[in-house]
Amino acid sequence: MRYVLLVQYDGTFFAGYQRQKRGERTVQGELERAAEEVFGVPTRVAASGRTDAGVHALAQVCHLDGETTVPFERLAACLNTKLPPDCKVLCAAPAPEGFDCTRSVKQKTYRYRAYVAPTALPLFARYAARLERAPDLGRMREAAALLKGEHDFAAFSSTGSSAKTTVRTLYSVEVACRTENGATMYEIEVTGSGFLYHMVRILAGEIFAVGYGKSTENLQRAFATKQRNLIAKTMPAAGLTLVRVEYQMPLFAAKED
Amino acid sequence: MRYVLLVQYDGTFFAGYQRQKRGERTVQGELERAAEEVFGVPTRVAASGRTDAGVHALAQVCHLDGETTVPFERLAACLNTKLPPDCKVLCAAPAPEGFDCTRSVKQKTYRYRAYVAPTALPLFARYAARLERAPDLGRMREAAALLKGEHDFAAFSSTGSSAKTTVRTLYSVEVACRTENGATMYEIEVTGSGFLYHMVRILAGEIFAVGYGKSTENLQRAFATKQRNLIAKTMPAAGLTLVRVEYQMPLFAAKED
Repeated sequence: MRYVLLVQYDGTFFAGYQRQKRGERTVQGELERAAEEVFGVPTRVAASGRTDAGVHALAQVCHLDGETTVPFERLAACLNTKLPPDCKVLCAAPAPEGFDCTRSVKQKTYRYRAYVAPTALPLFARYAARLERAPDLGRMREAAALLKGEHDFAAFSSTGSSAKTTVRTLYSVEVACRTENGATMYEIEVTGSGFLYHMVRILAGEIFAVGYGKSTENLQRAFATKQRNLIAKTMPAAGLTLVRVEYQMPLFAAKED
Repeated sequence: MRYVLLVQYDGTFFAGYQRQKRGERTVQGELERAAEEVFGVPTRVAASGRTDAGVHALAQVCHLDGETTVPFERLAACLNTKLPPDCKVLCAAPAPEGFDCTRSVKQKTYRYRAYVAPTALPLFARYAARLERAPDLGRMREAAALLKGEHDFAAFSSTGSSAKTTVRTLYSVEVACRTENGATMYEIEVTGSGFLYHMVRILAGEIFAVGYGKSTENLQRAFATKQRNLIAKTMPAAGLTLVRVEYQMPLFAAKED
């Protein structure tokens, strides 16, 4: 029996999603420990994709295969009693026929948040990066428009990516700015077919750089030349949240919105 | 020379504002340690009022008396190099003539936040309390309207309050509800002349209780009888944030909004 799980985690104290050989604390490690307690046997918990150390997830999608007498309506609560406060299962249900949380992904949405302040603010720093000064919103949106569509994003990826192709499609790249608790907060929301290693943090960095006056020519040349050094540095992990993963088939039909 | 400071802190790992005899970690303790390093002598840092263990402040107002060659425009940055990540000075300036951050208070605004979920959510739990089910917004607003105005709030205070009078005026009690990152979030924002020990957390609890169907008669009887047991339990500290403190005189004229 395959179950699909919606999982929320605060990435601050995790060395990313994927289980590490060196025994660091990971989301997968916590989920698999909890699943083993509930299912009684070692149980692998797959995810839609890995998230890096420090990256948060509002609703990561996972699956596991196992047999249990626990009714699925009580499975999330049951796993949650075994999980730490910074990683919880929002809901669990039998997976649709042929579902694979990694391979069936249609699109994913990430959000990158950054606030403007001269010092790291105690009530903002956990879920957002800091900008020393305000970038220009109009220029940021120009960069966002150029990033949209199908491109070779090789230059927007850190070395270490194992992807076979570096072509990805971004269906939307939205930039918003508003006052949040007295601080100016910038939010970049990106929906795409898939993302390379560090890709969202790098493209967020480039959008901010263009907002500070960098020419968008670098960005366009980077698509053609694949030169990583044309593009901004990787932004800090704390600003990044995996917001949503969408599939060909509906999941949790009644519960998801 | 008296300086006024705007201070932000994440209350999660503080035993409240006020310095404790037993050497627990407090906001005042951190501020006074930093001030002593900058001013070179033991320096008391007063606040508009104490906040309890676990309560956050977006903009607590403090003052200190001291002499330094550091220009006031650089004082916040200077103190921040000595402060931990969960407590920072947003700005510092010479205090207006006759200013006392505790005695000159005109009104304070607190916000109480709570979200609806069957389990504590990793990305919500740090700055909000949890409700198991959704209270009725209309009923909550009825309770809020009854709380507004000048009343004897003795029944809305935990024992241990040292206040001389328990009469306080609430200028506004606003209840809002919205979807925040997929969860239903309730926010109660209260502005008043002053607050008794635990008062905001108790009145938030009573507003939620009325939202669940409790009669507002208890609330009205509690004003007359001062009976604490007519009123709901104190809500958890994590949901409470001191948002704003206002004074007779303008502070940080150019910087505050």
